Amino acid sequence: MAELTAQALAERLGGVVEGEGSATVSRVAPLDAADQEALAFVAHPRYLAGLAHTQAGVVLVPVEMPHVAVAPAVRALIRVADPYLAYARATQWLHPPPTFPAGIDATAVVAGSVARSAHVGPRVVVEAGAQVGEGAILEAGVVIGRGASIGPGSWLGPNVVVGPACQVGARCRIHAGAVIGADGFGFAWDSQAQRWEKIPQIGRVVIGDEVEIGANTTIDRGALSDTVIESGVKIDNLVQIAHNCHIGQATAIAGCAGLAGSTRVGARCRIGGQAGLTGHLTVGDEVTIAAGALVTHSLASGGYYAGHLPILPFRQWQKSAAWWKRLAEIGKWWQKRRGHSTSEE
Amino acid sequence: MAELTAQALAERLGGVVEGEGSATVSRVAPLDAADQEALAFVAHPRYLAGLAHTQAGVVLVPVEMPHVAVAPAVRALIRVADPYLAYARATQWLHPPPTFPAGIDATAVVAGSVARSAHVGPRVVVEAGAQVGEGAILEAGVVIGRGASIGPGSWLGPNVVVGPACQVGARCRIHAGAVIGADGFGFAWDSQAQRWEKIPQIGRVVIGDEVEIGANTTIDRGALSDTVIESGVKIDNLVQIAHNCHIGQATAIAGCAGLAGSTRVGARCRIGGQAGLTGHLTVGDEVTIAAGALVTHSLASGGYYAGHLPILPFRQWQKSAAWWKRLAEIGKWWQKRRGHSTSEE
Amino acid sequence: MAELTAQALAERLGGVVEGEGSATVSRVAPLDAADQEALAFVAHPRYLAGLAHTQAGVVLVPVEMPHVAVAPAVRALIRVADPYLAYARATQWLHPPPTFPAGIDATAVVAGSVARSAHVGPRVVVEAGAQVGEGAILEAGVVIGRGASIGPGSWLGPNVVVGPACQVGARCRIHAGAVIGADGFGFAWDSQAQRWEKIPQIGRVVIGDEVEIGANTTIDRGALSDTVIESGVKIDNLVQIAHNCHIGQATAIAGCAGLAGSTRVGARCRIGGQAGLTGHLTVGDEVTIAAGALVTHSLASGGYYAGHLPILPFRQWQKSAAWWKRLAEIGKWWQKRRGHSTSEE
Repeated sequence: MAELTAQALAERLGGVVEGEGSATVSRVAPLDAADQEALAFVAHPRYLAGLAHTQAGVVLVPVEMPHVAVAPAVRALIRVADPYLAYARATQWLHPPPTFPAGIDATAVVAGSVARSAHVGPRVVVEAGAQVGEGAILEAGVVIGRGASIGPGSWLGPNVVVGPACQVGARCRIHAGAVIGADGFGFAWDSQAQRWEKIPQIGRVVIGDEVEIGANTTIDRGALSDTVIESGVKIDNLVQIAHNCHIGQATAIAGCAGLAGSTRVGARCRIGGQAGLTGHLTVGDEVTIAAGALVTHSLASGGYYAGHLPILPFRQWQKSAAWWKRLAEIGKWWQKRRGHSTSEE
Repeated sequence: MAELTAQALAERLGGVVEGEGSATVSRVAPLDAADQEALAFVAHPRYLAGLAHTQAGVVLVPVEMPHVAVAPAVRALIRVADPYLAYARATQWLHPPPTFPAGIDATAVVAGSVARSAHVGPRVVVEAGAQVGEGAILEAGVVIGRGASIGPGSWLGPNVVVGPACQVGARCRIHAGAVIGADGFGFAWDSQAQRWEKIPQIGRVVIGDEVEIGANTTIDRGALSDTVIESGVKIDNLVQIAHNCHIGQATAIAGCAGLAGSTRVGARCRIGGQAGLTGHLTVGDEVTIAAGALVTHSLASGGYYAGHLPILPFRQWQKSAAWWKRLAEIGKWWQKRRGHSTSEE
Repeated sequence: MAELTAQALAERLGGVVEGEGSATVSRVAPLDAADQEALAFVAHPRYLAGLAHTQAGVVLVPVEMPHVAVAPAVRALIRVADPYLAYARATQWLHPPPTFPAGIDATAVVAGSVARSAHVGPRVVVEAGAQVGEGAILEAGVVIGRGASIGPGSWLGPNVVVGPACQVGARCRIHAGAVIGADGFGFAWDSQAQRWEKIPQIGRVVIGDEVEIGANTTIDRGALSDTVIESGVKIDNLVQIAHNCHIGQATAIAGCAGLAGSTRVGARCRIGGQAGLTGHLTVGDEVTIAAGALVTHSLASGGYYAGHLPILPFRQWQKSAAWWKRLAEIGKWWQKRRGHSTSEE
């Protein structure tokens, strides 16, 4: 753990100290659990009231914060343009990730090439032709397939699997159990034999820099061409990305979402949890898709879409659900009737 | 496998034998597949008719069972208050779990401390500072991170990952491939740089006693404070529990459900398969959420909610779906028109 | 990589060459990325225009293809009944899977029996009583539980787990991280103690031949009897199959789908991504279920069902969603009113 003064934090964050610039913090904590050693933050105005009772030594607050009561325990406020972003950075400085010694564990099985400063943990397997870059960290049980490459500074959690020939860029983080480069789900129906014929999946997965991929998420290799995840993309846990998808820069995809084959998503999109995209469609840039929505057609840039059914108490749900199948009848009657109404009323 | 008489079973279960108390069973089987060595059960009245043809030696039946035909093969009935619960217990006695020898496999890599009676299987990794309690069982390929702890009597299936500093209580069961303590999905958007800034996830996952967690399920560590799973919680496969969730005692969560960050679920709730909770909301005690429902607001204790769309034959679905977007127009017209109707009729 | 002439391909595929039968290809590529060494295909008439500009040496086209412009680079067309199926087969010939040497890696831990021609990769664990058939391939980190069996020619990707006593047939492909044979989610509620009583799951998973199972998919063992996956079934990534399900021959299940306990699905069904089946229900043969549909009752053979809500721009969605809870009121009023209308108009 590091230690920083309010003044040093303010300088790094481009903020302004109000109070004791020499107040020192060594960790980050929530406003209601912080003590004198801790830095807290208030990102939303609705949490400003918490300032009156906090024990935090230093607090990050918005530049344009209104005048509110501040507890006497607070030795310094730091006014910043974006307290949430400042909290993210300060946490990185005060809670740096653990360091891993360079070198290959004696229990690892390495046939490929590993850069001198990389860390290869216990029981890791690096197959022939695979390359692991400088400063990369492979935690216990990771498997890197033949000819795959892991860029410099990337971290792979325990038991991650990267399939043959797949490429992971620099400074990526891939969490435990994620599978990069399994076969896409590709079969041709043989109507004579009444069976599925396997289509070998000969494409790769190509991942840019600074991509984060959640635990047990799966990203399939392309059928003929590649599945591409551009730089800065953030993917949560248990997400399925099918073959030949292309995800644009800095798009974020929340947990349990699923993208069917050949989906093209633009840059800076936000896809909610459990959302689905049915494949062979294109989503523009900066599109937001709410949790639980199923996207079945292409979308232009910039919209915000939703598609879940609101929950209801069960009996009430039963009533609405029963009429769902007659909605078209009601609608048609209404359309005709409305015409009459308009002329009448 | 053990062997028990009908009389011994009845005594342990608080039931009453009807027939031969000395009838002996050595396994549990479904009513229609059981033989003379097997114990079967009838939990629902609708299955009582099966009693007429079963070959089971002994059958658990409800205390208040009506008079029905019983096959001559049945040597004893045991009347109990809750046959399903009795079946659960009898199965535990007749089919005890396999035993594992105490000790650390020669291929395991152990830097942490392991209790003498614990079993550490092949290729397990226990990192520095981690603790494994008495009688705990770590199957092949498990990875226990730095400073994590596994309580006495807990069983972890093959390739389970428990992240640094996370705590698992006593007598838990965590199935193969589950990942406890990956990073929460926390990023702050840097609007100037048009990129996501990582928020280090410095909280832990803290799991109580007798918790069961399904295969490939993921439970993320907290951002600042902890993700908490209270004692007696049962979680199925492929469930996502995001950072800072708090799940109350004995709540059950079915497969493929997803809980977004900072969701608080009370005690004894039942959450159906593929259900979602969108985060930063509170669900009271004993709430039931049907399969496929997406909960987007807080819920008081005790209700039963649903929120899925009933399936329809595709063409019929198309018709209803087409009118969904005009439902508000129809509704408003109806609301106004209904006023007229009421006054007219 | 292999090499084949247009003539040889046509003979194997039962097609007819148009052009140079001696034109040779060594790989498969998409029409717009192919070169002289590559075989491409046109399966749908809407892609026929691409023939005018392709650089592909040989192209698979439909027998009944209309007259269209073909680029001069194309040395031969092969007319076949089903170009997509032909492409699948040709890809298998031109891109054969990598071969694995027979034998057991020095870092594997093998207590069970392994056929002489099988490949057991680094860090694999084969527990006591387990059997691995001729030509089977177990990639790095696979765990085969006590008494389980893997049929001849089956391939298991890295870190796959097959639980005790489970059976995998011949020529199956199970992708990285899949868990076959974790416990089903079975508990009896003890209303006195207010806790869940574990029901030991003593059934197995029994998988037929030529089954493909996706990455991180989970298939639970049966409670008393078995979970059964018949031959030719294809299952995508992150699919949950609960205890005692029975999936009929050649059924295909797309990613993130979930089947609750005791679901019976017939042969040659197609289940879309994120679809759900709520358990204790039967689906006939050749049923198609669209992505995102939740099936809550049994279905006869042969239908096509859907059940997702179409997405809408958020504000429009809000309006429709607000009226969902009053749909029954509207419906009832309409039903009554329609009667009047009919008599009036």
